[in-house]
Amino acid sequence: FDHLTFWVGNAKQAASYYCNKLGFEPLAYQGLETGSRDVVSHAVKQGKIVYVFSSALNPGNKAMGEHLVKHGDGVKDIAFTVEDCDYLVQKARERGAIILKEPFTLEDKFGRVRLAVLQTYGDTTHTFVERTGYKGLFLPGFHPPLFKDPLLNKLPSGKLNFIDHVVGNQPDDEMVPVVEWYQRNLLFHRFWSVDDKQLQTEFSALRSIVVANYEETVKMPINEPAMGKRKSQIQEYVEYYGGPGVQHIAMNTSDIITAVSLQKTKVNRCIPAILLKQNLIKKKKRKKKKRKEKTCPLLTFLKNASEKMVQKSRNLCFPSSQEDIFLKNSQTQVIYYYRVSVFITLICVTVIVVDKCVIYDIQGGEAKFTIF
Amino acid sequence: FDHLTFWVGNAKQAASYYCNKLGFEPLAYQGLETGSRDVVSHAVKQGKIVYVFSSALNPGNKAMGEHLVKHGDGVKDIAFTVEDCDYLVQKARERGAIILKEPFTLEDKFGRVRLAVLQTYGDTTHTFVERTGYKGLFLPGFHPPLFKDPLLNKLPSGKLNFIDHVVGNQPDDEMVPVVEWYQRNLLFHRFWSVDDKQLQTEFSALRSIVVANYEETVKMPINEPAMGKRKSQIQEYVEYYGGPGVQHIAMNTSDIITAVSLQKTKVNRCIPAILLKQNLIKKKKRKKKKRKEKTCPLLTFLKNASEKMVQKSRNLCFPSSQEDIFLKNSQTQVIYYYRVSVFITLICVTVIVVDKCVIYDIQGGEAKFTIF
Repeated sequence: FDHLTFWVGNAKQAASYYCNKLGFEPLAYQGLETGSRDVVSHAVKQGKIVYVFSSALNPGNKAMGEHLVKHGDGVKDIAFTVEDCDYLVQKARERGAIILKEPFTLEDKFGRVRLAVLQTYGDTTHTFVERTGYKGLFLPGFHPPLFKDPLLNKLPSGKLNFIDHVVGNQPDDEMVPVVEWYQRNLLFHRFWSVDDKQLQTEFSALRSIVVANYEETVKMPINEPAMGKRKSQIQEYVEYYGGPGVQHIAMNTSDIITAVSLQKTKVNRCIPAILLKQNLIKKKKRKKKKRKEKTCPLLTFLKNASEKMVQKSRNLCFPSSQEDIFLKNSQTQVIYYYRVSVFITLICVTVIVVDKCVIYDIQGGEAKFTIF
Repeated sequence: FDHLTFWVGNAKQAASYYCNKLGFEPLAYQGLETGSRDVVSHAVKQGKIVYVFSSALNPGNKAMGEHLVKHGDGVKDIAFTVEDCDYLVQKARERGAIILKEPFTLEDKFGRVRLAVLQTYGDTTHTFVERTGYKGLFLPGFHPPLFKDPLLNKLPSGKLNFIDHVVGNQPDDEMVPVVEWYQRNLLFHRFWSVDDKQLQTEFSALRSIVVANYEETVKMPINEPAMGKRKSQIQEYVEYYGGPGVQHIAMNTSDIITAVSLQKTKVNRCIPAILLKQNLIKKKKRKKKKRKEKTCPLLTFLKNASEKMVQKSRNLCFPSSQEDIFLKNSQTQVIYYYRVSVFITLICVTVIVVDKCVIYDIQGGEAKFTIF
């Protein structure tokens, strides 16, 4: 992943929120002061994660306005770093992909970047970024941030390293065509998949196929709803978002407990607003030992944390608005995803250990814990 | 003033921004969790100042969506506390005002509130709020905030007391009809006025008439552009906002220096994002003494502060985006407004002492200081 672009109502406030609440730092800025007359963009960074928040500068911006009215704040573009932009666009075009912007070059004194934009699911796009040798802060046209919030120095690090995966939610029966789009046009392969037999709670169910690039550095789970007693969370997303879109962004952390508690300190929400993936490599030994004792410390943590989380999620974290559609779904879910996945919804918590399946449900505060 | 309602893209982030950066505290909440299916509202409070940030919950909300696309985040409604809602609506109707919502009652276990909504300039509205005896947090339908940012306890007070005035910018030649609207429909009177001979800089000029209610607790300066060497700041506002609208909200503080430095600490913007009015009563004596010495400490402060402010404003604070149209103008202006008004624009600083006119211009860092 190169970076993600959010189209939002208020780029400055959104960037400020991610900096103050999730430990990001201002990276670069583009706006009236830098000669950008139509769009203002604030780029923020943490570890290798770069988010860009963009808003229209003038009344009546059609593209950004319609996106905002339909989706609320949302992820507009997922940019991939590529080695040969022109070649990839050529190949994608041959296979039938819609090219929204043919390859073009941005240039400033720090070098040149070659870009192109492709249409993917819903109103979401992918940008190819070929930045070989570019030495600037972010992209040509971006300048250093105009100011830095002095409060940020006083806040602890967010402990987030890189984007692990970006999930795209689809309406019913549209998962497979989208997966095929990635296989055909970007030469992604199927990395992992689950159907509704594996991934369900008493009330909500979904199907998911994870597609990944050759190196498996880019992972894109594609979800669709499945039948359950109540409406699938995926369907709920699609209705609130007004169509397919990015459901959540999972970010890697080397210390999930600290990261979660930091997010809690900062945000005081039961659930970190963005999903966290722990790099467990260092902890493998400890984990193995504990497994023999039949209590994975992780699960104990998750169990304790999740009970509180779900309690609060029932009270507090119901998707609160289209105001933050991107956060909305993450507010109802925490994905813990190395070999363990945790889905927290309003009605349940499910922990799935991939090699051993642990279903962990909380319904009205009552915990059911099953290992099989 | 009872409260002001902002229609914004992301009510949660906006409320968080005002709390973290300007010293507000969460007051009340209305959203999915409280049974409000279409709109989420976060109310925040400081002193007697109450702001409500509202966003649409569902895709395609026409009224809020169009407002957002046209204006960006902006002040939608200025609510007045009134003693007899029905009587005032009746009188306003007789005089030709457009009543958007006839008087209606909201009720919960804490009591009843009678409300009505009138159209004023542009897309802006006025709500009459007759809350005699209502004991709830804010208004019926609002619940206690769902969560409180733990960071807020660690931040200093914003030192803001109450809304001093709310300025409405009009296109050329529309000031007088708007002033007459207030005189005719709300029985406001002219409190103060300046024309472009008094209120101008080398480049920018404006005309302003302040209307006020009988008790002069509500003051509403109505501005229109006047001819100058460059485009009037009022015209600039009207073009960016897509029509008439609230330009700034001036808030009273009992300690402007602390308040400004707090805002600086919090926001690190050269200029407090919202305008401040100092209650000078306690400082009158000191001020008089200093005047004899021909250096008002206030002006010295303002001079020092303003030089920095303008320096930065030239570099940093050019109205950065429609993202925060409400903040935009305040970023280019600080109004110090007891007997002193300071207008900071991109090109100049003007300090006007009403009884003695002090024109204080900064152009490219060079300060001109004239008293006459």
